[in-house]
Amino acid sequence: MELWFTEQQGSNIRYGLRVSETLFSKQSEFQQVDVVTTKAYGRMLLLDGLVMTTERDEFVYHEMISHVPLLSMPRPPRRVLVIGGGDGGTVREVLKHPSVEEVVLCEIDPVVIEASKAYLPTIAAELDNPRCTIEVRDGVDYIQQQPDESFDVILIDSTDPIGPGVGLFNVAFYEQVKRVLAPDGIVTAQTESPFFEEEGLNKIYSNLREVFPVTTGYYGIIPTYPGNLWTWCFCSKSVQPGQPADKERQAVITATTHYYNEAIHQGAFALPSFLRRSIRPQGLASTSEAASPC
Amino acid sequence: MELWFTEQQGSNIRYGLRVSETLFSKQSEFQQVDVVTTKAYGRMLLLDGLVMTTERDEFVYHEMISHVPLLSMPRPPRRVLVIGGGDGGTVREVLKHPSVEEVVLCEIDPVVIEASKAYLPTIAAELDNPRCTIEVRDGVDYIQQQPDESFDVILIDSTDPIGPGVGLFNVAFYEQVKRVLAPDGIVTAQTESPFFEEEGLNKIYSNLREVFPVTTGYYGIIPTYPGNLWTWCFCSKSVQPGQPADKERQAVITATTHYYNEAIHQGAFALPSFLRRSIRPQGLASTSEAASPC
Repeated sequence: MELWFTEQQGSNIRYGLRVSETLFSKQSEFQQVDVVTTKAYGRMLLLDGLVMTTERDEFVYHEMISHVPLLSMPRPPRRVLVIGGGDGGTVREVLKHPSVEEVVLCEIDPVVIEASKAYLPTIAAELDNPRCTIEVRDGVDYIQQQPDESFDVILIDSTDPIGPGVGLFNVAFYEQVKRVLAPDGIVTAQTESPFFEEEGLNKIYSNLREVFPVTTGYYGIIPTYPGNLWTWCFCSKSVQPGQPADKERQAVITATTHYYNEAIHQGAFALPSFLRRSIRPQGLASTSEAASPC
Repeated sequence: MELWFTEQQGSNIRYGLRVSETLFSKQSEFQQVDVVTTKAYGRMLLLDGLVMTTERDEFVYHEMISHVPLLSMPRPPRRVLVIGGGDGGTVREVLKHPSVEEVVLCEIDPVVIEASKAYLPTIAAELDNPRCTIEVRDGVDYIQQQPDESFDVILIDSTDPIGPGVGLFNVAFYEQVKRVLAPDGIVTAQTESPFFEEEGLNKIYSNLREVFPVTTGYYGIIPTYPGNLWTWCFCSKSVQPGQPADKERQAVITATTHYYNEAIHQGAFALPSFLRRSIRPQGLASTSEAASPC
């Protein structure tokens, strides 16, 4: 017998992975949480039937959401907040930075943490690290209660802008994120794929631009995500992306990474033309030529 | 009734596209040639059941194989050779360069040209241009009969290294390519995806390095290709990749492109770390960490 997981990407695309085993399956208060073993990508975490991360390609997402902002900060970051990201991959990358004294993981769903600790040990590897504080609660509530300028870097490691993740994409939330960010701090938000979410992408960037003086998209390639070209937005009150702040800090990280490196740090900001056009302010955009194959 | 085309990518991955219509289907002397209409990506060309190009994402491949080498040449290129590429997309991009007096398309299979002209008119758009010469023959034979240093740029727009394309990946062929290349000329070869062909990729780069003094990989993102991260190799006798040769020549092109731009021209050479490791000479490579999920 052959078992296949099939992700329906919109109405017109299907992505199928051969599965050898179901390791975890539970309906939480928020969503259906599954971990299966795939033949091609190792173990895979699914939320409500959608691919969240796999052992074989998770490095792209987790390295890119973390090291680009942390290494862009002019001084070594000490306090980092990860909102979402209950699988622990982002926390693992953040804790590679020796300057980080505390990373707070604010994840709404304890079942995601439970499943990841039990079945994705290479991803959840640092969730028990004493430098990691886990807050099992809604990121929107959590951030409202934090003091001004109390985090150096904030990583919005959300799911898609549907279901439990929807509140992590609006202006009111971004205002709170800005308030708790250090003056020289950096925020990075995952911002979906332009191949599938052109209109949604423009809306996310429009919301971010309303709040942050600096907003710049960057990208990476994730084979198991719809559209494959994945984007994040680098946001700050004043710090510009570009050269990393410190070659020595960077060398510590690049000794460990599989995607991120000193060339990618800048190259990831060299956006394809259709993506530039997708995310620029509406009115300037010619949307007819951008790809959105759903 | 719903019709789905499914590409089996290795044994463990399937990629499915909903199909509304079959436009062309013919067994040629070399391969099965089909054109279908997909809901997500428009019309799609298949050879032996594998996705070759689609109307919605073909721009990535065709712009990146063409403009990176043509705009890297120190002088405006005049004679260009495209080997393979019977769909005409590469020829269309090459002919955007006003300096090009002649582009020779050397395609082994007349049925690919016939199907593309009839059913992929936006891709085959320039195949009847008087500056385009079509040679329906084997690229290996063709190149042996060309004079030394007779082409400024040579684009190896091959299929995968199986079937009719296999001869376009070996050292003897590359030696002939080098012989007919101008001293300041540039060769670009499509070199597959590291996510699926790590070992094959290393072999291709090893063959290219045996022949060309300069060989540098670059990449782009193609949603309908297996692995999605696609690579090309920039090869030359002396010209280095990097800055484009001429901002004015470049501006003519970037006014028309959907992926290529002045930032991508450099950013595409900023390879992810696992890809750098996949293509470097064996003996130096630690292959355990590179991804090859087939």
